Amino acid sequence: MSQDSFKEYLLSEFNIKFNDETLLIEALTQRNYLNEHKDEPGRDYQRLEFLGDSVMQVSVAEYLFKRYPNWHEGQLTEMRIAMVQTRSFAHFARQVRLNEAIRLGKGEEMSGARDRDSLLEDIWEAFIGALYLDQDADVVRRFLDKTLFAAIDTDFFDRFIDFKSRLQEKLQENGSVDIDYHTENEQQLSDNTQLFESSISVDDRELARGVGKSIKDSEKAAARAALKILEEK
Amino acid sequence: MSQDSFKEYLLSEFNIKFNDETLLIEALTQRNYLNEHKDEPGRDYQRLEFLGDSVMQVSVAEYLFKRYPNWHEGQLTEMRIAMVQTRSFAHFARQVRLNEAIRLGKGEEMSGARDRDSLLEDIWEAFIGALYLDQDADVVRRFLDKTLFAAIDTDFFDRFIDFKSRLQEKLQENGSVDIDYHTENEQQLSDNTQLFESSISVDDRELARGVGKSIKDSEKAAARAALKILEEK
Repeated sequence: MSQDSFKEYLLSEFNIKFNDETLLIEALTQRNYLNEHKDEPGRDYQRLEFLGDSVMQVSVAEYLFKRYPNWHEGQLTEMRIAMVQTRSFAHFARQVRLNEAIRLGKGEEMSGARDRDSLLEDIWEAFIGALYLDQDADVVRRFLDKTLFAAIDTDFFDRFIDFKSRLQEKLQENGSVDIDYHTENEQQLSDNTQLFESSISVDDRELARGVGKSIKDSEKAAARAALKILEEK
Repeated sequence: MSQDSFKEYLLSEFNIKFNDETLLIEALTQRNYLNEHKDEPGRDYQRLEFLGDSVMQVSVAEYLFKRYPNWHEGQLTEMRIAMVQTRSFAHFARQVRLNEAIRLGKGEEMSGARDRDSLLEDIWEAFIGALYLDQDADVVRRFLDKTLFAAIDTDFFDRFIDFKSRLQEKLQENGSVDIDYHTENEQQLSDNTQLFESSISVDDRELARGVGKSIKDSEKAAARAALKILEEK
């Protein structure tokens, strides 16, 4: 995708229009591209990546701080680490098609950099840095509402969170309790995979159930559901 | 100093008045204090520290990004690391008298926590987190303008920066050059210390001089002056 097409995409999909388009181009430009195009003015993405890295940190920290008023700082930190990391940023860079718009050097293109998580992480941060500079923190927040923050309400970040440990910690805040996981059901699906249902009991009283494609996943889902119940109390 | 006196100090010295004073108190409260005062509502500083940590990161990153448009991201990162670190935050926590206002548990007080850099760093971050929440990013910036950012114009952060390496890197961007440091002067001061003056020459042409209380310091000062000259070109 050309940079012009990407600008149109940003406008139609996110209602974002850069005042200073050189900032957007800078965020999309890898160093070797400039080495190969000496006549083109401008810089590579690295300074914007420096800025965007910390913009991501504070945006995610503030979001979690406000969304989860009862989480202690250990839980907040665990979730922030899950969200602010290479695999996460690379995923969302692909989702908003940044990967298609990068200006790469030829060698980098040949070696598959366009699909490399570490580059996509850098470009995500540089794009966020450019958006922050060109617009403001609120525009960044609204963009993250549609991408990174929206993913909290799906299971996207759950793979990074240890819900069973977190539940255990929560349940034992006021002394020792017995926590039991039990597999309640096992079902064969038409696509030849299995579905498990696990329950979690605390001192022999069932607290919650969860479903997953492995016993491990179903126990994790049960722990997650149990935590939700406890936090809503 | 009582928390009330600290509020007056913030108002008179920095023109800061919290809308929600419980946020300020939270930032100043260590966990053991709450354990010892079960009747007092509120939380300890740790959630605010989580938030303030990233507010400091982005505030410093944005400041450096804008102040040094010609620095590459390696230089920006080096300076950010120098500014955002325990010794730095502890220093400024003392400068704005946060240390005097902390609500500490008795055991912590006895063990000298009030003057411990690691606690002062936490309280600095918690205070910044509270200020950011209660006011906004601009108020934080103005507060940092009077404290952390003002210190850039003194030599405060220079101890953390390797100016000689940075100068060498800069000078050799376009190929190898000869860099020579030479001690030009040595002077005995009345307080029995010595003062040195060093010059730095590039390919036998003098570029800058610097003064310091050791040869090492005077060479560092010369390198710093040389960098300044090169960056202004």
